[in-house]
Amino acid sequence: MTDDVIVVHNEPKGKEWIGRLMGKSPIFICAIGTTETAKIPKISAAGKTPEITDYTPAADVELLLHGRCRCMEGVPITPDGIPTPALITMSVLELTNIPTFVVVGGARIKPHTPFIDLGGTPGKDIRTGKAVENVGEVLERAEICGRNFAKCADYLVIGESIPGGTTTALGVMMGMGIDARRKVSSSMPRNPHDLKVKTVEQGMRAAGVRFGELKEDPSRAVACVGDPMIPAVAGVAIGAAQEIPVMLAGGTQMGAVLSVIKTLRPHVLRNLAIATTRWITEDRTADLKGIITQIADVPILAANLDFSGSELDGLRAYEAGVVKEGVGAGGTAVSAILKTRGRITCAMLMKEVEKNYRRLLRRA
Amino acid sequence: MTDDVIVVHNEPKGKEWIGRLMGKSPIFICAIGTTETAKIPKISAAGKTPEITDYTPAADVELLLHGRCRCMEGVPITPDGIPTPALITMSVLELTNIPTFVVVGGARIKPHTPFIDLGGTPGKDIRTGKAVENVGEVLERAEICGRNFAKCADYLVIGESIPGGTTTALGVMMGMGIDARRKVSSSMPRNPHDLKVKTVEQGMRAAGVRFGELKEDPSRAVACVGDPMIPAVAGVAIGAAQEIPVMLAGGTQMGAVLSVIKTLRPHVLRNLAIATTRWITEDRTADLKGIITQIADVPILAANLDFSGSELDGLRAYEAGVVKEGVGAGGTAVSAILKTRGRITCAMLMKEVEKNYRRLLRRA
Repeated sequence: MTDDVIVVHNEPKGKEWIGRLMGKSPIFICAIGTTETAKIPKISAAGKTPEITDYTPAADVELLLHGRCRCMEGVPITPDGIPTPALITMSVLELTNIPTFVVVGGARIKPHTPFIDLGGTPGKDIRTGKAVENVGEVLERAEICGRNFAKCADYLVIGESIPGGTTTALGVMMGMGIDARRKVSSSMPRNPHDLKVKTVEQGMRAAGVRFGELKEDPSRAVACVGDPMIPAVAGVAIGAAQEIPVMLAGGTQMGAVLSVIKTLRPHVLRNLAIATTRWITEDRTADLKGIITQIADVPILAANLDFSGSELDGLRAYEAGVVKEGVGAGGTAVSAILKTRGRITCAMLMKEVEKNYRRLLRRA
Repeated sequence: MTDDVIVVHNEPKGKEWIGRLMGKSPIFICAIGTTETAKIPKISAAGKTPEITDYTPAADVELLLHGRCRCMEGVPITPDGIPTPALITMSVLELTNIPTFVVVGGARIKPHTPFIDLGGTPGKDIRTGKAVENVGEVLERAEICGRNFAKCADYLVIGESIPGGTTTALGVMMGMGIDARRKVSSSMPRNPHDLKVKTVEQGMRAAGVRFGELKEDPSRAVACVGDPMIPAVAGVAIGAAQEIPVMLAGGTQMGAVLSVIKTLRPHVLRNLAIATTRWITEDRTADLKGIITQIADVPILAANLDFSGSELDGLRAYEAGVVKEGVGAGGTAVSAILKTRGRITCAMLMKEVEKNYRRLLRRA
């Protein structure tokens, strides 16, 4: 099992976390949202075309809860046809019977599944400097959710699906004084850092905000240059982490979430960890550790997923740096391994992903 | 404790249930909905005026999750000023730390709380014979919810808030061949049976449906003369009761829910019980037992709440047959007593309700 869950940063705390969660039963929460920012050409690969990114989050959670997408044919793919990481999450959840709930921070397309509405609205293009409405309401409702989920789980795993999310996360971090320039990941092998920075800077100018100026005002940072997933995840985490451990299941986007939490409720940081995939922690075009260490002393865990031996092209592409993470794939994989005390391995997970992917390809 | 939880019907199974749930931890789910049927003059007292019944369910669950209403001043009251049973539920939940989630089957006014959207729409006037849209979708999504909640609780308690709900329940039962005429309860001391029967008969005529004709088609019974709470509660119960016990926390309305479940998934009946208040089981204007025994062999439990000694007029009115039940008041009280193995008593609950009611009166 040592091989299947890697402590990427903060070894002592990371090992302590692994011990603490071993054999325990989590609840998985997937927070979704959409943002017009995702439609800026070449900024996101989380959809076959920029316009279709509105459907990706809904389709992702439909896959988790129904075993198939309902708002689209097939499954969400990149422009090159590489499938959504929701395939990984779905396979993990099925294997381990982990209870799953969907939280909507604000989305243009609502999933055909039960979902928890937090009173948010879809995100706008951050270049307007007015990206998200209702941030306070979403935070407050999400916190109530988190408090209630904390009463019925050993710990929470919170993932996300929001196309364009690394750019909006970069926006929030820049506003709050975290230098994440050229450090956020991408679903594409060629990370469009220049475009992301330019987009964020344009949004900050439009909002009249300078780097670090919103360090103490995370709600405004989200409202100006963020996205509706961020307050949803931050709120649920704040509500739950007062009582139980919370795994922020995602890549560099979780830097923005962590930054919001740190300012609003620093005392819950002790109950937080980041859990992601090896594809993120080994991403040479980004620097998760360089982001997280600027914010808080939390461990970073990674599921040692390796699809290089897969028979399916769409999965082997993950090894070339496509997709990498999303929909809590890494965090749920970590929690499946821990819940079963290593009985479930990364190799088994790959086989299960292959099986489900084949089934969905046949259906399509 | 024997005195605080009464087995009103089916003594052996009822006692077995009490033993089975003793010391266990439930999740409480409150399903809400609205229906235009509630606006028929003199049919419902779940609101100061007929028009305001649209706000009652949202205000009820705001009280549960925020400790105060947000969509209205004060709390929902009857035309005579008697307060909502959500006051009881809220007091129980606070005392016992029971996790709480809100499910919306279809409502004109959405609560300012996190809520689970099941894709339903507000109910229409059943006299049209076209009362509820999307019944199948709500059932399916609710079942997914129930399956997931079953993975994180020992058992579920499912309550409801929907003004006019006994009339729509009567409609579904009549359509399905359960003779509930003059047997459903009312939030008023003078139960308007004639008006309810006339309303249902008008709806059945409009839908071209005769008594019992929809025995095998509960979705159509709900669609013609029901309300959006019924498929929400039935679906969550079906999803959960395949794995864990489910307490249907309400009065005669739960007859309609039970009837739907019986036809769709009879094998889950073994995991169901009705739990309500003494005010319902002693209601001389209605006959809960007479309804339930026509449907299934499930136990009926009641919380032996007695407000006759209360210092507050608004609570003593419950002893005169006003309100009686709602928002899962009886079922959550039963589960609080069982969870604490009788450490919490009905007398303590009354004191807590008084305290909260005073606080809310002061604020108003």
